[in-house]
Amino acid sequence: MKKLRRRIFATAGSNTVSLGTGRKEFHPKKPRPGLEHYVKEAGQGALAQVNDADNIDEGVIGNFMAARFNKQGNLPGLLPMIDPKLEYKPLVRVEGACGSGGLALVTATKSILAETADTVLAVGVEVQNTVKAVYGADILGGAGHYASQRKKGDAYFFPGKFSDRACAAYEKFGYDKVREAMARWYERAILNARTCPKAQEYHNTTDDLFAVGMTPPNPKAFCECINYFDCSKVSDGASALVFASEEGLDKLGVDKKDAVELVGFGQCVADVSKDPEDQTKLTTSARAVKAAMDMAGVTSDDIGMLEVHDCFTIGGLLSMEAAGFCDYGETYDFVREGKTAPDGEIPTNLSGGLIGYGHYTGGTGVRQAADIVLQLTGKPESQKIDLKKDHALMISMGGNDRTVVSCVFRRVQ
Amino acid sequence: MKKLRRRIFATAGSNTVSLGTGRKEFHPKKPRPGLEHYVKEAGQGALAQVNDADNIDEGVIGNFMAARFNKQGNLPGLLPMIDPKLEYKPLVRVEGACGSGGLALVTATKSILAETADTVLAVGVEVQNTVKAVYGADILGGAGHYASQRKKGDAYFFPGKFSDRACAAYEKFGYDKVREAMARWYERAILNARTCPKAQEYHNTTDDLFAVGMTPPNPKAFCECINYFDCSKVSDGASALVFASEEGLDKLGVDKKDAVELVGFGQCVADVSKDPEDQTKLTTSARAVKAAMDMAGVTSDDIGMLEVHDCFTIGGLLSMEAAGFCDYGETYDFVREGKTAPDGEIPTNLSGGLIGYGHYTGGTGVRQAADIVLQLTGKPESQKIDLKKDHALMISMGGNDRTVVSCVFRRVQ
Repeated sequence: MKKLRRRIFATAGSNTVSLGTGRKEFHPKKPRPGLEHYVKEAGQGALAQVNDADNIDEGVIGNFMAARFNKQGNLPGLLPMIDPKLEYKPLVRVEGACGSGGLALVTATKSILAETADTVLAVGVEVQNTVKAVYGADILGGAGHYASQRKKGDAYFFPGKFSDRACAAYEKFGYDKVREAMARWYERAILNARTCPKAQEYHNTTDDLFAVGMTPPNPKAFCECINYFDCSKVSDGASALVFASEEGLDKLGVDKKDAVELVGFGQCVADVSKDPEDQTKLTTSARAVKAAMDMAGVTSDDIGMLEVHDCFTIGGLLSMEAAGFCDYGETYDFVREGKTAPDGEIPTNLSGGLIGYGHYTGGTGVRQAADIVLQLTGKPESQKIDLKKDHALMISMGGNDRTVVSCVFRRVQ
Repeated sequence: MKKLRRRIFATAGSNTVSLGTGRKEFHPKKPRPGLEHYVKEAGQGALAQVNDADNIDEGVIGNFMAARFNKQGNLPGLLPMIDPKLEYKPLVRVEGACGSGGLALVTATKSILAETADTVLAVGVEVQNTVKAVYGADILGGAGHYASQRKKGDAYFFPGKFSDRACAAYEKFGYDKVREAMARWYERAILNARTCPKAQEYHNTTDDLFAVGMTPPNPKAFCECINYFDCSKVSDGASALVFASEEGLDKLGVDKKDAVELVGFGQCVADVSKDPEDQTKLTTSARAVKAAMDMAGVTSDDIGMLEVHDCFTIGGLLSMEAAGFCDYGETYDFVREGKTAPDGEIPTNLSGGLIGYGHYTGGTGVRQAADIVLQLTGKPESQKIDLKKDHALMISMGGNDRTVVSCVFRRVQ
């Protein structure tokens, strides 16, 4: 596996609140900020941590479905709204469904490796609460293969894909064990979100989260094998981050202690029209993780913090195997035993993940990286943990394990 | 201006027919191929010119509005449909409205410069005839700033932007001169398209094209200062091209004589919510051209063939100034005098441009580059010209001069 030809740093992580049901300030019938607001808030939050927007060489924006949620395309043209100094610079928008944010990270990285840039602003955004839930579900169905996979009247097409995975896991490993692991995943997501004031579930005050998570699926109301609480949130929000070479950090006036190093990445894409080889595995994610770890020269033993793409609880569970923290079939006990808790074997999704923090789809990959940068530089917006190892791993996934980016970051000593 | 840190080549250009009104085989009520068909046809056409799809390291797909025209996102996942050997490779989708294709070219280039790839397949696609024209016009309005610029009931929002430019040109340089230049641009586009069997206007048999082009605008039926014939076509189609380093060409078994060299590029993006500084200029395009020429170390004197983004006749006219072939205000006479004809001073849009060949929006930038590669390697799909100079220039533009990529290619001796 090829190594990175230049050192790459990430700094200036910035997240907006994840707005949607669950947040006290959210009201479905009241006016809300638009796409532009979130891009500006996240982007300005990042640029406030560097000395001058003029020192940003390029920009990339990750987004999934602004075309339908907001009727807006030509998204590179949103970035100069952050700061007029970005105007006329090389800007690009990338998309890979809910993995769009991850693609923004690797696209920024490649510009620095290409030496067309020493500094790149990466932004990820999605504003989804513009339509009713049933229309939103149809829009998000574009993460699968709409022409061949979506059946007429199949309102919950995409949750159905992960319901199928849960069904397969129930059958193979037993309903009780899998269901309990899903409930524990949900419980942990909300507990972690309660430590993060920007998280969508920050205001959640439910006493017995595990009992809620154990709600049996009701196929008549939703999907066959998952329930509403197994899904990530419908969210409005954005995140931003600055990538830089060593020269770039100097130019931005950023000390290395306020940055983390990106030491490996993997980017793997599967055919969107195909179903998974095995419903109980995230095989594309596993490939991306392997590529990232090989490039970084690390194994899961070196990883002290994890950010995985729990678009559904079953997805979170399967990610632990894809990330190499347990063997096939072992994730259910791994999670039930609390090994993903902040004080567990591998602290995971510390601000709540997609289920707890929220899931502004095309922006989530950037949010994951921003959280890693903030935690590894000692400035987390959620609970602060005592990091026992110097590396952090993230998985950003689009569609049903189709478009995946994995990155390994290292704390700078 | 920084030079390219590696030599970059483009080869294996491949275009599909541009399908839509004007083509004999097009019938609005008959079933037509979908997005996937075009991606496959163009991509397979490119891969047939290299020795093995397994030697393609990465892929990029440019597309504007599949989210609305086709309800499809997660577009990187379409590329493995071209060849299963592309599956699990690093693939990405880029977007910048009608400049999406141009962004695909520079994104591919950056991967090679980054040394994450020696070979990249670039595809551009749009399938627009899925909806009625009035809905299509609304969809394409996403190239402007939908939230602030589009007025209720403004069915032709985006043509209106270029109508405003035509109005400004009429006022500044005189209706007769400008109108006649627009009509000559139209006439030349169709004449060129008639030399290219894949062009949407290939079957056009109108005798007096100039008279058609002189049709006076009718604000009650369409826009104030342009008429229907001043607009590019609504098209379905795709194009593909392979980018490679020198090592990449060897790996693909492609001789340098079948490739052209990319020697410069410019990528400039303006704020999508802002109107142009001057309606009679394409200032962002001019910046991108200057960056591309500076990187290549050439001037317009070195350019023997031009591909410009004539989404509207007035846009084509203004491009000649942005590309440096005439001074401000001189394009109207320049075009009236036939200087853009195949035997003129600067042969332009030889297969018909967006008005003659057709405009599958997100794919057009790749089509332009593929046409340059085919012409410069002596295998054009349209008329073959006697190239007097070794360089070719292209401008790919998204929105109203908002997201622009310009590239300079050089014939390999």
